[in-house]
Amino acid sequence: MSGSVSPLAPKSYPAMPSIRGVRMATAEAGIKYKNRTDVLLMVFDEPAAVAGVFTRSRCPSAPVDLCRAHLSGGAARAVVVNSGNANAFTGKKGKAATELTAQSAAEAVGCEPTEVFLASTGVIGEPLDATKFAGVLGAMNERGTGDFWLEAAKAIMTTDTYPKVATRTAEIGGTTVTINGIAKGAGMIAPDMATMLSFVVTDAAIAPAALQALLSDGVGPTFNSVTVDSDTSTSDTLMLFATGAAAHDGQIPISDAASPTLAGFRAALNDLLKDLALQVVRDGEGARKMVSVVVEGAESDAAAKRIGLSIANSPLVKTAVAGEDANWGRVVMAVGKSGELADRDRLAIWFGDVRVAVEGERDPAYSEAAATAVMKEQDITIRVEIGLGSGTATVYTCDLTKEYVEINGDYRS
Amino acid sequence: MSGSVSPLAPKSYPAMPSIRGVRMATAEAGIKYKNRTDVLLMVFDEPAAVAGVFTRSRCPSAPVDLCRAHLSGGAARAVVVNSGNANAFTGKKGKAATELTAQSAAEAVGCEPTEVFLASTGVIGEPLDATKFAGVLGAMNERGTGDFWLEAAKAIMTTDTYPKVATRTAEIGGTTVTINGIAKGAGMIAPDMATMLSFVVTDAAIAPAALQALLSDGVGPTFNSVTVDSDTSTSDTLMLFATGAAAHDGQIPISDAASPTLAGFRAALNDLLKDLALQVVRDGEGARKMVSVVVEGAESDAAAKRIGLSIANSPLVKTAVAGEDANWGRVVMAVGKSGELADRDRLAIWFGDVRVAVEGERDPAYSEAAATAVMKEQDITIRVEIGLGSGTATVYTCDLTKEYVEINGDYRS
Repeated sequence: MSGSVSPLAPKSYPAMPSIRGVRMATAEAGIKYKNRTDVLLMVFDEPAAVAGVFTRSRCPSAPVDLCRAHLSGGAARAVVVNSGNANAFTGKKGKAATELTAQSAAEAVGCEPTEVFLASTGVIGEPLDATKFAGVLGAMNERGTGDFWLEAAKAIMTTDTYPKVATRTAEIGGTTVTINGIAKGAGMIAPDMATMLSFVVTDAAIAPAALQALLSDGVGPTFNSVTVDSDTSTSDTLMLFATGAAAHDGQIPISDAASPTLAGFRAALNDLLKDLALQVVRDGEGARKMVSVVVEGAESDAAAKRIGLSIANSPLVKTAVAGEDANWGRVVMAVGKSGELADRDRLAIWFGDVRVAVEGERDPAYSEAAATAVMKEQDITIRVEIGLGSGTATVYTCDLTKEYVEINGDYRS
Repeated sequence: MSGSVSPLAPKSYPAMPSIRGVRMATAEAGIKYKNRTDVLLMVFDEPAAVAGVFTRSRCPSAPVDLCRAHLSGGAARAVVVNSGNANAFTGKKGKAATELTAQSAAEAVGCEPTEVFLASTGVIGEPLDATKFAGVLGAMNERGTGDFWLEAAKAIMTTDTYPKVATRTAEIGGTTVTINGIAKGAGMIAPDMATMLSFVVTDAAIAPAALQALLSDGVGPTFNSVTVDSDTSTSDTLMLFATGAAAHDGQIPISDAASPTLAGFRAALNDLLKDLALQVVRDGEGARKMVSVVVEGAESDAAAKRIGLSIANSPLVKTAVAGEDANWGRVVMAVGKSGELADRDRLAIWFGDVRVAVEGERDPAYSEAAATAVMKEQDITIRVEIGLGSGTATVYTCDLTKEYVEINGDYRS
């Protein structure tokens, strides 16, 4: 963990209500860190419906393999998350460690191992000593409480400088339901999906297939639109659990994601996912500025997103932002290198509300002072009009500072 | 320009022989820098055969547009290169500036404007005052000499910390020919092609089409296999000129690139291109270490190259190198994010001669001390065996340091 909190951190945390049907506890298992919690147990006393979205890495971690395998059952009774060790690229030992952890959690909670989901974050390639979990999970299950979200978010931090939580409510057919989420992630953050762990729980009664559809739809403009450093983790995991407790209040269980009854829930879920995703970007390693890259007028939405990511991942754009330099020429460069259709002479670029370039050249009314004033802000919007179609996308990133290099040049020591 | 020379700079420069048929001069046109040469004129007193490879940016600079248009003529009489301003994204003004410059050079040298080639490097988006060239080109033509390669290389530098030159000889049918080259480039370096300017001249007699084939073949494993920061310039230009003077020594002019007579020339040319490309990487902005990424056993050569570039462009890999951290987990990450076929459990990774990972996990004989000793070297080879096929590629890059951020966070001021 970095010594100081990101200047982009939230000024305050929301009160996180309990969600009926889920309890949590954290412990110090001593995986890597000392004198801090490093393992989180989430318990569903009744099986919760479960959905998940995972890294697209061709070298996924052992916990990702396990989650993918267990997801087909559709039911979750426990989640074990640890920081300090990613259990990634750990070969047969890694698989054995996940099996032992799932077995330990199943015994602690009283369920099948296939109802257990796992996530690990931290160093890649170090064997994870899963026997450390066995000793703590039973006691964690006993003391787990529903009022524990912020502490849970703290336990899964690695280079994060602040815990990430969000909560929303929605109505489903007149019944109020709650959605809570936690996330971690600060580096190795790139679609798809943004390298991080996030666990979202609702008391709504929604069947697994519908839950999966909601999550898969929601991740596109949120977690899959943020990038810190273009690097994609082996361990990206976003899971959504529905305890179904709201059925006791009369919510009629939903099995079709397309049901109009879900409109409010879908909006609230997407808003929460965006909130968490932006918290991840705002904690980007070494970040001093948050950048929203808005691309309009591209050939398609997909093209707009690729152009947006090309800008957001460009080291030269990101260092210019760090230097508060209104260097829009580098934005042109990044549009040009994206590979997407672009016509130099139709491009227009804005920093904030200041149009800096239009029709393939510097804006005739260009004011260096006005553009520089925008760059001095903490939150900066770079908008690019491609002028070729109606494709749009927004991508979120942060600046690239010396602190990023410092944090990542000496991460393991 | 940076204040101090890269620690990876060549310890000495080769004596650069004159090449019959080409003369050069530099001048201080005052484009941006003060008290340094910033414009280079290269003159071919007889029309030289010409070939070129340019940026794949969708937003190329005005000089790139001009070169592409003039290349079809196959003949060059003059080249004008300036530093300090890229004349990129300068709209109609940019095109007018290139036309004026070509006209001025044509008048100075006594040729057609279509026999003039241009390249500009520096800031994007600033109008280039081409009238500044008109006043100096005539005198430059008069004083141009053949013994001017190192000075020419200095005139085209921007953030480069040292000039880049190389020379080779080869035999074509018993006649010795010479190849000289200069290059510039330190940032915004990525395929395709590596963002830079390079001008290579030979006295061999080779027809334009054959020359183009040689250059297009040669660029793949050389300039198109180096990356400093994944950013692709709007201005990348690599040109090859053949004055044909060796015909006076009895070299029979060559019109077919596949001619066996060209084998030695091709090898010498490729070796020179690699030399110049590596000099560019070794001058990567803020670079302290040079990294060769060797990928073997991929599905195809193209897959191997994409995996290699994924590793070479990963900020997390590059910062680990800067920190002398044998963090091979990040190499796994970069393989995984490449999108190419990979089987975690067949991967093996070496730092130098030290195998750090094998069969999907840390090498049983792993020695942190041995791996760290490799990372303390100035030149580091990262080798990855994918274990799936016979595709290979080698990609060259440098580390990512705080100095890179410093140089690029305050480039324009």
